[in-house]
Amino acid sequence: MQNLIDGKEYSNILLNKLKEKIKELKDKRLPKIVIIQVGNNLASNKYIKHKIKSVEKIGMLCDFKKLDENITQKDLLEIIENLNNDHIVDGIIVQLPLPNHIDSTVVNSVISYKKDADGFNPITLGNVMLGTSKIFPATPNGIIKLLEWKNVEIKGSNVVIIGRSNIVGKPLANMLINKSATVTVCNTQTKNTANIAKKADILISAAGCANLVTSEFVNKNMTIIDVGANFVDGKYCGDVNFNEVQDNVKLITPVPGGVGPMTIACLLENVYELYLQNI
Amino acid sequence: MQNLIDGKEYSNILLNKLKEKIKELKDKRLPKIVIIQVGNNLASNKYIKHKIKSVEKIGMLCDFKKLDENITQKDLLEIIENLNNDHIVDGIIVQLPLPNHIDSTVVNSVISYKKDADGFNPITLGNVMLGTSKIFPATPNGIIKLLEWKNVEIKGSNVVIIGRSNIVGKPLANMLINKSATVTVCNTQTKNTANIAKKADILISAAGCANLVTSEFVNKNMTIIDVGANFVDGKYCGDVNFNEVQDNVKLITPVPGGVGPMTIACLLENVYELYLQNI
Repeated sequence: MQNLIDGKEYSNILLNKLKEKIKELKDKRLPKIVIIQVGNNLASNKYIKHKIKSVEKIGMLCDFKKLDENITQKDLLEIIENLNNDHIVDGIIVQLPLPNHIDSTVVNSVISYKKDADGFNPITLGNVMLGTSKIFPATPNGIIKLLEWKNVEIKGSNVVIIGRSNIVGKPLANMLINKSATVTVCNTQTKNTANIAKKADILISAAGCANLVTSEFVNKNMTIIDVGANFVDGKYCGDVNFNEVQDNVKLITPVPGGVGPMTIACLLENVYELYLQNI
Repeated sequence: MQNLIDGKEYSNILLNKLKEKIKELKDKRLPKIVIIQVGNNLASNKYIKHKIKSVEKIGMLCDFKKLDENITQKDLLEIIENLNNDHIVDGIIVQLPLPNHIDSTVVNSVISYKKDADGFNPITLGNVMLGTSKIFPATPNGIIKLLEWKNVEIKGSNVVIIGRSNIVGKPLANMLINKSATVTVCNTQTKNTANIAKKADILISAAGCANLVTSEFVNKNMTIIDVGANFVDGKYCGDVNFNEVQDNVKLITPVPGGVGPMTIACLLENVYELYLQNI
């Protein structure tokens, strides 16, 4: 497993650095994050458990609000507004997915950009596009940190992103463009995705489609970042047919243990940055 | 000139539609735009003259403020804040470029997104990325309108953009991604730009570099949009070596008379939309 990018290892390094920074605050107010869950989505339960564990590990404060799945959008927005105005709250996360009667775009735009731990607010995203933001959507930021950790050259490299979601594909494309990569964003309408992918120096799959990326998509000098989070026959897997391509690429992230742990570390880095701006 | 995309023709169509809409307002308050120029840049003088002429043609109100080039950033921001609070002002434009002592990113972020005629405010750009905006940066929007006017298929097409500015390349990329194109954004660090461009269905050059796009960049089925605005030996020209490629592509915009006039039409469409939101 020489060519594995171990996201768990690097996220632990980042979390330990955060822990040190929080220790240095001594008798100052500690950074605080509020996590809101609406309903009882099983995958969400798991993700939130991981987040709370990491928050506790580094010594931040955490408040977890589990709300009834029938809460109205109006009542949810009111809870968020109250948290926006609570000066000892530094970051607010509303765990996705939300029930169908609640519009996540509205929710994300109501979370103040000053408490936007996930980096989903339009102001944050506009600044991300402009290259002026200190807060970044956590998964894209985790991906870039992994590449930089492994000294994968971004500037001038040919990056192909499969997927164009608001939380991964699009912000990531903008961030990589700002780092002088040549970036191609593919979607379900793309013709010959394999041909396009095959020429990439860095291939990032965020399509949410198990076994999408096969040996036809890769080359020997490629770095693959697998952002997929799929369940197949009860087994958690990424977008990449890992066994098929692992030996045919330069570097690759596993699922689990690749991008996932990095997302949490970057989320908490956002909270720390928001805390610094808030105190 | 069978394959020419006549931006002047289409912008006139759009401006006449706007003129009709403004006529229909009858005794209501008319939409008003304020154009601010700092200093006396000769190209800016020309662009502003065009804008004012178009504003007058369609019957909007226009206020032109020409400020001393030594005005402080603080004083300029104060003028903008006053316009933000003036309820009969619907759109504010600060003509770029600004003198070196003024930070255009700060200026654009201070213009309220509710009066953001140029579409440069971070909130506008974040919403553009998310696909929730009714206001768009004018040049990218003009490009997409030209493609749609000429029935050039965007969905599923392979689009290559040369240039990654905050006012053209990046917002345009996000807008085209939202329209299901496969989008590649090149920059000065890109290796083999010609090879990448050659495979495009739609090639958009916004590099600001005369004669960049030569016959090596094109194919017979390609639509070329030339966003360049360069002066060579006193002559205004685009990024494309027009004479060399014109007969080797399917459709092409001229410079002048292509994207330029569309920018003004889309700018005034923004002002009209902001007016509707403001009354």
